[in-house]
Amino acid sequence: MNEINSLSNFFNARGVAVLGASTNPNKLSYGIVRNLIQYHYGGQVYPINPNTNELLGLKAYPTIASVPDPVDLAVIVLPVNTILDVLTQCGERGIKNVIIITGGFKEIGLEGAAIEQAAAEVARAYNMRVIGPNCVGALDVYTGLDATFLKGMPDRGPIAFISQSGALCGGIVDLFVDSGVGFSHFVSLGNEMDVTESDMLAYFDGDPHVRVIALYVEGLKDGQRFMRLAREVSRRKPIIMLKAGRNEAGARAVSSHTGSLAGAYTAYQAALKQSGVIEVDTVAELFNTAWALGTQKLPAGKRVAIVTNAGGAAALASDSLAAHGFKLASISAETQAALRQKLNPSAQVANPIDLLGGATPEEYLWSLSQLQKDPGVDLLLPILVPQALVSSMDVAQSWVEAAKLGEKPLISCLMGHHSTQEAATFLNRSGVPVYTYPDQIGPVCQALADYENTLSQPAWVPAQPAGVDLQAGQRALQALTGKKTTGEVETRPLLQAYGIQNVPGGMASNVEEAVLLAEQVGFPVVMKIVSDDILHKSEAGGIKLNIHNQEQLRVAYNEMMRDVTSNVPGASIRGVMVEAMASKGQEVIVGLKQDATFGPMLMFGMGGVLVELIKDVSYRVAPLSMAEIYAMIAETAAGQLLKGYRGGPAADLQATAEVIARLAQLGLDHPEILEIEINPLVVYPQGRGALALDSRMILKA
Amino acid sequence: MNEINSLSNFFNARGVAVLGASTNPNKLSYGIVRNLIQYHYGGQVYPINPNTNELLGLKAYPTIASVPDPVDLAVIVLPVNTILDVLTQCGERGIKNVIIITGGFKEIGLEGAAIEQAAAEVARAYNMRVIGPNCVGALDVYTGLDATFLKGMPDRGPIAFISQSGALCGGIVDLFVDSGVGFSHFVSLGNEMDVTESDMLAYFDGDPHVRVIALYVEGLKDGQRFMRLAREVSRRKPIIMLKAGRNEAGARAVSSHTGSLAGAYTAYQAALKQSGVIEVDTVAELFNTAWALGTQKLPAGKRVAIVTNAGGAAALASDSLAAHGFKLASISAETQAALRQKLNPSAQVANPIDLLGGATPEEYLWSLSQLQKDPGVDLLLPILVPQALVSSMDVAQSWVEAAKLGEKPLISCLMGHHSTQEAATFLNRSGVPVYTYPDQIGPVCQALADYENTLSQPAWVPAQPAGVDLQAGQRALQALTGKKTTGEVETRPLLQAYGIQNVPGGMASNVEEAVLLAEQVGFPVVMKIVSDDILHKSEAGGIKLNIHNQEQLRVAYNEMMRDVTSNVPGASIRGVMVEAMASKGQEVIVGLKQDATFGPMLMFGMGGVLVELIKDVSYRVAPLSMAEIYAMIAETAAGQLLKGYRGGPAADLQATAEVIARLAQLGLDHPEILEIEINPLVVYPQGRGALALDSRMILKA
Repeated sequence: MNEINSLSNFFNARGVAVLGASTNPNKLSYGIVRNLIQYHYGGQVYPINPNTNELLGLKAYPTIASVPDPVDLAVIVLPVNTILDVLTQCGERGIKNVIIITGGFKEIGLEGAAIEQAAAEVARAYNMRVIGPNCVGALDVYTGLDATFLKGMPDRGPIAFISQSGALCGGIVDLFVDSGVGFSHFVSLGNEMDVTESDMLAYFDGDPHVRVIALYVEGLKDGQRFMRLAREVSRRKPIIMLKAGRNEAGARAVSSHTGSLAGAYTAYQAALKQSGVIEVDTVAELFNTAWALGTQKLPAGKRVAIVTNAGGAAALASDSLAAHGFKLASISAETQAALRQKLNPSAQVANPIDLLGGATPEEYLWSLSQLQKDPGVDLLLPILVPQALVSSMDVAQSWVEAAKLGEKPLISCLMGHHSTQEAATFLNRSGVPVYTYPDQIGPVCQALADYENTLSQPAWVPAQPAGVDLQAGQRALQALTGKKTTGEVETRPLLQAYGIQNVPGGMASNVEEAVLLAEQVGFPVVMKIVSDDILHKSEAGGIKLNIHNQEQLRVAYNEMMRDVTSNVPGASIRGVMVEAMASKGQEVIVGLKQDATFGPMLMFGMGGVLVELIKDVSYRVAPLSMAEIYAMIAETAAGQLLKGYRGGPAADLQATAEVIARLAQLGLDHPEILEIEINPLVVYPQGRGALALDSRMILKA
Repeated sequence: MNEINSLSNFFNARGVAVLGASTNPNKLSYGIVRNLIQYHYGGQVYPINPNTNELLGLKAYPTIASVPDPVDLAVIVLPVNTILDVLTQCGERGIKNVIIITGGFKEIGLEGAAIEQAAAEVARAYNMRVIGPNCVGALDVYTGLDATFLKGMPDRGPIAFISQSGALCGGIVDLFVDSGVGFSHFVSLGNEMDVTESDMLAYFDGDPHVRVIALYVEGLKDGQRFMRLAREVSRRKPIIMLKAGRNEAGARAVSSHTGSLAGAYTAYQAALKQSGVIEVDTVAELFNTAWALGTQKLPAGKRVAIVTNAGGAAALASDSLAAHGFKLASISAETQAALRQKLNPSAQVANPIDLLGGATPEEYLWSLSQLQKDPGVDLLLPILVPQALVSSMDVAQSWVEAAKLGEKPLISCLMGHHSTQEAATFLNRSGVPVYTYPDQIGPVCQALADYENTLSQPAWVPAQPAGVDLQAGQRALQALTGKKTTGEVETRPLLQAYGIQNVPGGMASNVEEAVLLAEQVGFPVVMKIVSDDILHKSEAGGIKLNIHNQEQLRVAYNEMMRDVTSNVPGASIRGVMVEAMASKGQEVIVGLKQDATFGPMLMFGMGGVLVELIKDVSYRVAPLSMAEIYAMIAETAAGQLLKGYRGGPAADLQATAEVIARLAQLGLDHPEILEIEINPLVVYPQGRGALALDSRMILKA
């Protein structure tokens, strides 16, 4: 279904019915009718209330059936036990868009969840799109269709805000009313019975008033679909997300053997990065960055010119910029000379350009106009700390004027409140984003750069590893039906089917088979115990390295059987793995874990005991492109070592990337593999491949 | 000199003279006289201006000499070229406290610096204490002595703010006027000709109105003195610092051979931590934490109870708390039952306690009063997102009431602006700190915990390593006069003098000496080239390991000489080091670097090639206690490995700590050692010591 058509009436309905519209001003439904009238929504408003004929000057109707055309949207504020009936009535009336404000559904337990599911079925039967239940509603600042009970309305502007918390919408409106920061939409999604963030992304993609999409998310319902859409939409409009429940998600993480495969928030971080979504840490950052992205051109580079009346504020801004990858521009000699002409002789004309305490609007304008022309400057940052003798408003006006003199992005800082609020609102209304603290500048600039980076990415093509033997993979997994955890023995054939090279070897059930195998793979060999009851092979005496001949092998075998049975009495022993003694290379870990939201998540990092201590790991969600795989490797210290660190030889990066691609494919083909880990994967010098030395899996029971 | 007596008149003068008091309301000096009158300062105000008889209703005097008693403080706002005369006049008049507002001193160059130095000499001659020059002045919110030209005055309260940026003081006043956040003092230190942060710390330590000290610092003049004072004062009053110029400092860092000994900001971080100063990252955090520390008791533990009307806001607060070491309290069954009695049946009574959108003041009060009694709760956090139907002010009143019902700290969040400002001011004025964003809560709580931790530290006793041979150290250094960089040969004797064990060995000038040395230390040995011209011994063929006998040694020697001279033609070769082949242990790096602000800074971390890649290093400033040394080790992954990680054997932690203590002593005794590095220090199992395998130094030229 076309999202734009099916969701459009939430914001452009020709008529809106409010079901359960109360005449009591202390009821939320009364607030909705009031908002629909107050913000000059051009369509019809139909209060539905069998107990009155009139509400706020509007004719009231007893039922939805009695409402005349046109009516495209129903807003339901009725008790949960009436919802199924009312929804059916809406369906019968031909209404295709419904907002259910009412709470008491799945958020309160099983009974509520059952009603919610039944409601969803009704909606599907009538081809209705539903926002909510348990939400604050939706509003379009441009059309004035405010189907919420929020108090206040911010300016019109570029930001569409999608929130999984209705209350947060209220807080945001309260924060930004009269601030000059402009919004296009607020959507509170509630329980997401039907409409999700992904639907809204697709819709806002097509709404010309939306220039930036800000999201508050607690948990995505449809991770893979969200990624697909975000990857596309972010090419046209910046998407910014604040994710809540980060630490809880972390706590829920099911840690694998090494404890380093992290939980769901890690998957979010990877998925957002991969799909071009800018992740922020705080509510303030969400709107600070959205506002800059919604109003400013992207800077051509990362060179910032600061013009300030306070050295301290400039120092804090410089710190923040540097911490976020930006730097102070070198001001050309020509520009410095021009600045000198009109500034206080004591002023600093190198960057930060310090006009000193008494800085006048004229001095700001002169400085900024010169910097607009300096080709070494990519972004302008005027800062004012309010002074007793200078009007903040006059200075703000000079900034707005300066912004118009060139093409460069200009963001600003007014470090005050009492005497600067009016000037701040003026700046924002004039399209010059203004922030209170100099230390808020860095994250904003970084978001501009991040988005520039998103736009410059080549088209995304998922990696498609060649030579995968699907049948062999299927067979290997079928053989494991009923197993929950497996070791190397069972994992090897699966890796092999997907073209990942295991160290040569196999399992032997007795010493004679072991000798035979050793002859086949060639001495020296390694021998490892195979037993479901032995977790730590090494501690149990179940590993023998460097066996050079038959004789040593027999001795080692007998020793191992003796030690293992004495160290782990009663352990059921299936046999031994006999494997070629792999030559030394760089040890890395490669893993995969099925994430509940996004599906297969890949991990790469430093192998060995250090993996837990130093947490040198990176994550990506599959499907992923070869470019993403290389980026994932490069992010880690292990990846730096592979590249050839400090004169060391370059290792086979390509082979490493291939292993990750193949593991990703395995995870995509077989969601029943909950976790898989190759540790270590030994990577040899360039062109000489990589070998899985040990591996294990966790399967869906 | 006693700081309290000598600085007291800056804030308690019986009379204040303003030199250069203008009758023009657009001059800063006019603003100062106006402020002295406006804020009910009880003493005399004497405008000095030869061109008028009266200013703002006050009698004006032509010179400082003509001013009657009492006059304890002079505020100078006269051109820089008159300063020496005027300062002398003040001295002659018997004034002991002077604030120089005027700029144009060392901040503008050499000429200004010369005047500043001359002024300092005048001040010393007359025993005067001087704040400034180039500053905004100082004000005491309690006495009303406002000797600044700032506009506005915040409420009386616990926060003393010391700033190296005058403009920032103006911004802060503007931010907090009418916010209800209370201050005791503002001091703008300007160029710190005389009075520094350290002086102010000592003074504020003795002022009973000051309950918390907040600092904005660009660079400390007297790092060691600051540390000494801060370590003491922080036992009585929390000290919080925002350090600017962090990245520039980093860029200026002179990196050592490994590139990992970091620059000055690293020293600040270490020094602040060691002296109990809480470091914050942003201006907002500086005052957010100061306000909580100045108004709240410290929590007994880290268990927080959230009471909210918005789940999303609570989720964000939970994330922030968890990210800063706090957790959600488990609410007892008893408390939950009590909550149930009076709350909405749909309310969540587990933590976060979610009263739902329509939460009433009564529900907040009931919930918070129950939580005051729950022994499993250490801190209360009510959150309100403004709602159309609930009065924020009424809710705020319920919080203030709840705060009085028990002893627990209570901090709060009002996520709004437009409709919550009045309530926020009310909360702050009632001593309940309120923050706008839920994500601001974590850092505030962490500051409370950090301060609790400071108070619980045992008395600080500097490590005093035994068995240091001062004479031998002196001799070893004297032998190096004129050298700038040294290798192992020259560093070994110094380490030895300070009781740090080198691997047995020595330098040989020819093959025969080498053979002799090898016999002495015992085979197998290692041989390393000694040449000032060879930076990378290994690449040049200048290292031979595992030499087992005389014959091998002769062969190795000849090979080395051949390879080295062919790889580095023209290198001047001094000989070879012959050292015992040390047995394997854990390799760490230990270093020292003289920091311009704080003196010797110690470094500890993972040895080998990984040190640069993974930056597993920690820093401390000397002198330092053994407890600080152990903490420094424990902070790193290398330290975790030493402790015996994952069943590995515990290494000799004590010997490692001793080496750091000895290196610290060396740095304190000999500031001419700019850098010293032991890499690797090999640490053996517990009780078996640690050996310096290689070392180098950089000396003051």
